[in-house]
Amino acid sequence: MNAGVRIDGRTPEQLRPVTIERGWSKHAEGSVLVSFGDTRVLCTASVTEGVPRWRKGSGEGWVTAEYAMLPRATNTRGDRESVRGRIGGRTHEISRLIGRSLRAVIDYKALGENTVVLDCDVLQADGGTRTAAITGAYVALADAVSWAQEHKLVKAKAQPLTGSVSAVSVGIIDGVPMLDLRYEEDVRAETDMNVVCTGDGRFVEVQGTAEGAPFARTELDALLDLAVAGNAELEAVQRAALAAARS
Amino acid sequence: MNAGVRIDGRTPEQLRPVTIERGWSKHAEGSVLVSFGDTRVLCTASVTEGVPRWRKGSGEGWVTAEYAMLPRATNTRGDRESVRGRIGGRTHEISRLIGRSLRAVIDYKALGENTVVLDCDVLQADGGTRTAAITGAYVALADAVSWAQEHKLVKAKAQPLTGSVSAVSVGIIDGVPMLDLRYEEDVRAETDMNVVCTGDGRFVEVQGTAEGAPFARTELDALLDLAVAGNAELEAVQRAALAAARS
Amino acid sequence: MNAGVRIDGRTPEQLRPVTIERGWSKHAEGSVLVSFGDTRVLCTASVTEGVPRWRKGSGEGWVTAEYAMLPRATNTRGDRESVRGRIGGRTHEISRLIGRSLRAVIDYKALGENTVVLDCDVLQADGGTRTAAITGAYVALADAVSWAQEHKLVKAKAQPLTGSVSAVSVGIIDGVPMLDLRYEEDVRAETDMNVVCTGDGRFVEVQGTAEGAPFARTELDALLDLAVAGNAELEAVQRAALAAARS
Amino acid sequence: MNAGVRIDGRTPEQLRPVTIERGWSKHAEGSVLVSFGDTRVLCTASVTEGVPRWRKGSGEGWVTAEYAMLPRATNTRGDRESVRGRIGGRTHEISRLIGRSLRAVIDYKALGENTVVLDCDVLQADGGTRTAAITGAYVALADAVSWAQEHKLVKAKAQPLTGSVSAVSVGIIDGVPMLDLRYEEDVRAETDMNVVCTGDGRFVEVQGTAEGAPFARTELDALLDLAVAGNAELEAVQRAALAAARS
Amino acid sequence: MNAGVRIDGRTPEQLRPVTIERGWSKHAEGSVLVSFGDTRVLCTASVTEGVPRWRKGSGEGWVTAEYAMLPRATNTRGDRESVRGRIGGRTHEISRLIGRSLRAVIDYKALGENTVVLDCDVLQADGGTRTAAITGAYVALADAVSWAQEHKLVKAKAQPLTGSVSAVSVGIIDGVPMLDLRYEEDVRAETDMNVVCTGDGRFVEVQGTAEGAPFARTELDALLDLAVAGNAELEAVQRAALAAARS
Amino acid sequence: MNAGVRIDGRTPEQLRPVTIERGWSKHAEGSVLVSFGDTRVLCTASVTEGVPRWRKGSGEGWVTAEYAMLPRATNTRGDRESVRGRIGGRTHEISRLIGRSLRAVIDYKALGENTVVLDCDVLQADGGTRTAAITGAYVALADAVSWAQEHKLVKAKAQPLTGSVSAVSVGIIDGVPMLDLRYEEDVRAETDMNVVCTGDGRFVEVQGTAEGAPFARTELDALLDLAVAGNAELEAVQRAALAAARS
Repeated sequence: MNAGVRIDGRTPEQLRPVTIERGWSKHAEGSVLVSFGDTRVLCTASVTEGVPRWRKGSGEGWVTAEYAMLPRATNTRGDRESVRGRIGGRTHEISRLIGRSLRAVIDYKALGENTVVLDCDVLQADGGTRTAAITGAYVALADAVSWAQEHKLVKAKAQPLTGSVSAVSVGIIDGVPMLDLRYEEDVRAETDMNVVCTGDGRFVEVQGTAEGAPFARTELDALLDLAVAGNAELEAVQRAALAAARS
Repeated sequence: MNAGVRIDGRTPEQLRPVTIERGWSKHAEGSVLVSFGDTRVLCTASVTEGVPRWRKGSGEGWVTAEYAMLPRATNTRGDRESVRGRIGGRTHEISRLIGRSLRAVIDYKALGENTVVLDCDVLQADGGTRTAAITGAYVALADAVSWAQEHKLVKAKAQPLTGSVSAVSVGIIDGVPMLDLRYEEDVRAETDMNVVCTGDGRFVEVQGTAEGAPFARTELDALLDLAVAGNAELEAVQRAALAAARS
Repeated sequence: MNAGVRIDGRTPEQLRPVTIERGWSKHAEGSVLVSFGDTRVLCTASVTEGVPRWRKGSGEGWVTAEYAMLPRATNTRGDRESVRGRIGGRTHEISRLIGRSLRAVIDYKALGENTVVLDCDVLQADGGTRTAAITGAYVALADAVSWAQEHKLVKAKAQPLTGSVSAVSVGIIDGVPMLDLRYEEDVRAETDMNVVCTGDGRFVEVQGTAEGAPFARTELDALLDLAVAGNAELEAVQRAALAAARS
Repeated sequence: MNAGVRIDGRTPEQLRPVTIERGWSKHAEGSVLVSFGDTRVLCTASVTEGVPRWRKGSGEGWVTAEYAMLPRATNTRGDRESVRGRIGGRTHEISRLIGRSLRAVIDYKALGENTVVLDCDVLQADGGTRTAAITGAYVALADAVSWAQEHKLVKAKAQPLTGSVSAVSVGIIDGVPMLDLRYEEDVRAETDMNVVCTGDGRFVEVQGTAEGAPFARTELDALLDLAVAGNAELEAVQRAALAAARS
Repeated sequence: MNAGVRIDGRTPEQLRPVTIERGWSKHAEGSVLVSFGDTRVLCTASVTEGVPRWRKGSGEGWVTAEYAMLPRATNTRGDRESVRGRIGGRTHEISRLIGRSLRAVIDYKALGENTVVLDCDVLQADGGTRTAAITGAYVALADAVSWAQEHKLVKAKAQPLTGSVSAVSVGIIDGVPMLDLRYEEDVRAETDMNVVCTGDGRFVEVQGTAEGAPFARTELDALLDLAVAGNAELEAVQRAALAAARS
Repeated sequence: MNAGVRIDGRTPEQLRPVTIERGWSKHAEGSVLVSFGDTRVLCTASVTEGVPRWRKGSGEGWVTAEYAMLPRATNTRGDRESVRGRIGGRTHEISRLIGRSLRAVIDYKALGENTVVLDCDVLQADGGTRTAAITGAYVALADAVSWAQEHKLVKAKAQPLTGSVSAVSVGIIDGVPMLDLRYEEDVRAETDMNVVCTGDGRFVEVQGTAEGAPFARTELDALLDLAVAGNAELEAVQRAALAAARS
């Protein structure tokens, strides 16, 4: 395969088709089915009054996230973590990343003593599940915050959201920096990076890993450029989704 | 409310709209999104060569099932069993019920030393999740068996499926026997029964529980009549789904 | 073996010798050693003031049960669930069944905010352990309720027990419906059913499973007839045990 | 109470009534219901061919033990360790003590590659459960070894048992050394000791603990004297039990 | 090797070099790195106001201990108990022993409603880890008590410590009683005993185990003599350490 | 405090005193006590022949790491993960980071089918425990590899190490980028980044998190510059330590 020619015909700097379907669940205060190509993640936002014990009386809210994969989201069936009786390191790591990313755009004071839990369950995986989860969870969170405002859980005029947040993966394959890796690309990448940005183009998280050879500063710079551009596109998709009437 | 008038306008002997969407996942050998009204369950069937240790060398296959609910499938968010570190009694009970129900229509010898695992994950719950799971899982199992035949895991001319299986709930509400209870009905039912039938109208499982007062033989008989009729309808929906080309 | 001739010489509709020994433990408020032939279950009822958190302030009591097997209650030693660190699905399922069965004859209001825990530990198993447990646990519960009345935990004239409850297994072996299966019979049964009845002959639980071929309505009816008759006999044994002075 | 006058009228150097009922279970290769007064422990010995992995090929056998209490063996109901999902320190400690004590009279070579597991389940507790367990488990072990000899698992003329073993508790209450403490005595003891002896009067385990003030060498000596005499009596009871035909 | 000649040249009644380094950690209220030859244990004492729930309102304090080994403290790497998800029986047993030993020299009333937790983490093991832990933990506890006095958590003039406590192992190797066994000696010992004494020479714990043949009273007496002498030496080391200014 | 003036008098671009003490443990194949100021981590490297099952027959080795904190390594005592029965997300995340970082400088083929486990136990924490762990673990790994070469586990002339690796934290405090944060600085940092570099100045891992406001590209660039310089200094310390004779 020629360098830069991708298995699905994309150019190196091209996202997969991204869709965000709001109102997917009738129970949750916010719910989104997000797709990055064949990666599909169901993100639900659950609002409850009150906060964890360590935060009581602070007047401030809390946002947290839990990520999981259905057993057959992947090509080979994985054991359920509930059956194994313990959560794996990868699951923990991603849940924490999603929570931190969303908290970056939350004004705890404005949220008041309410908690929002984001559940991101991967229904089908094809690379980039954590970045799709963050991108979708933001929209579910926005809907949940609107719900809280409508139901007077949040004070009038309080704006718990200080901005938007999205995430995308980038990586170097055969020496070419590429955006939004599919599973087969991810496996082949020498360097793999997940970049979480706010809607105004600043960084919330940068997590780069040399899977093969260590990477140079110029490579890091090229990846960051790609990721910032990709996140700008994702921000537009999020904005469009939120502009539409909720289904 | 008048006895026999249901919140969604159904008659006592009427099913909710039932849909079976095949080929929902690109990875699994069989996959179905089944809906009984607002209850939605993703059923995937995973085929692997080989059988659990205790069955090795028998020449016989194995079929098992795991049931779970997404945390916000219900009106109030539930803790993840993976986070709690143990599977609850209800989950265990339903997983075992689904597994037994599907094994009732499997010829182990014809299946050969292959294992099929049915994962039934409830995406949205509104009563009858276990019966929807069984009804959908059968279709996923049928697709998985076809896949195994096409891929020569099963011997030519072997017919691992000996019939079809479906399930429906019935219950007595305000003295009236009713078919296919929604969550709000289930909560109010004095007696609650889940009935699993084969396509030819015989019983695989009958599980009746007096939630309020104990029930009489005549009530039991009326419930069984309703359930047999409901399962006959479900069998037709399954047959129609399997007759269509796989999406 | 001729159809209908049983390994221990019983007729198909005959119970094994059933004994109920009250006052087996000096500590528990109610305690019974129940035997169905070689199946022996120690049932203790523990009364405590107060109820679980979710029930506080309701003025209503609670009854729950835990079932377990000693490791060498069976022919082959089983691992302890405490050593494995998790309770198996079968244990969960039976504990829940026993709890539901006993709650069917409890008037929560009359019990007041007290909790009764029934521990059913199988000392020796030979089939029918769950049905023996329910039958014995009812007697232990009755003694515990009397104790609560004597100790003024329950209001004067309040009658927490609304009736009695017992259980028996039935099954079809070589086409013949039989009552109260021993382990060797249970293994061979094509259909296996556990039926829990109140003392006045109504149903609390009906759990029938096709172990081999699915079963027809006529078979189901024959099994229910047998079970109702068997439970009537068990009710008489319970009544006689409770009529005797407590040892 | 006068020093030396015990709640049940015993003298300081007197055992409670001790009974050993062999053949209590129809499944186990050895089984004993042992009573030290109101303390009742069911001890079963399970023989299996083969040894744990780390011992394979050594030509030597293995003996191990597991101790547990039924939830309502005590005055107040305790949580099940299976429900809590972990075994407590006390349970571990006692299981290990019982195992070591029995292994002290086993010739591993003579036992051959066979494993005996002793399950000691406390049905009713009134102090001294671990010493009753050891005393009863020895008799169950002796029956299990005989069974293994009869079934040719052990070589002809091989004598896996090198002696007998028993155990008793001693303690100092109000300055008076006493034998075989009941629960109420155990709670009041300043010093508490469990002593495991072989039938020929030597020591296998000595575990003394100052519950109140530290104890002097003279006190330690007095306790050891009492314990040696008590164990000699227990050895006679064991011998008598084993001399009788198995029930 | 001649009986009585030890691998490291010690005489049978000689301790290994024992060092106690106070103030090892900047965070803990008391901290000690104790060495018995190559055995090195880090003991930290953590003081917190308040007591466990079951002790609240009693006016009395609490002291408890937790023992653990780093995975490569031993010659072969052991699995972490946190990774296995459960604490082993040996760890439980030793933690309990250390806690009991330290509580023997605590006046709960004088301590007031404060809790001291002793963490004893074995950094390098060469036999006698539990006895080194007790000996070092006492010094950490003494420093923690001083800290509590300085910070007015303990009432003026209250003396929570009623004495000192230390521990040493003894054993019989090739028929010779020896003091303070190294790992290689411990493995070869026929009898192994851990003896915990107060500074005034009385016993807190005596735990003797026949690893090989049962032991006679004369052997027990010889071991106790050795242990009492060894503990007297350890008390002197502790006293010297506490007399020095805290590093 | 003036911006850029640090609590311990360092300049923003200055490391804390770093020491690397080799040969700290007599058992491990490589062992290092590494200090970054008051942060002290014991790193041991354990070599075993063979690899995990999924790697058998590949001819390639494996390197993995486990990170943990002693309970009182921090200012407030934390619960042991072994006692809680599960490993927290932070522990998992750091263990995985250390493992990946070390594997970046390993040639699996040259290592052959051997496994090296790095245990990094934090004895005292004052910020930067994961970066100290990586920096120290590399030296322990280098010693373990030398050991494996000396003991012929690795083929003559094979060079399993392809380079060196070290790590350092950087962060922005009051708008000033700073190197190697202490705990108090870490808590105040708006942005926090851990950077793992090879000895030749390329990147292995870059993990940056906005703790407060999102950060701009210029800030990210300044932090990377600082980190690269800091890692170059750490590489010199590592080289000097390895040049010295092993203690």
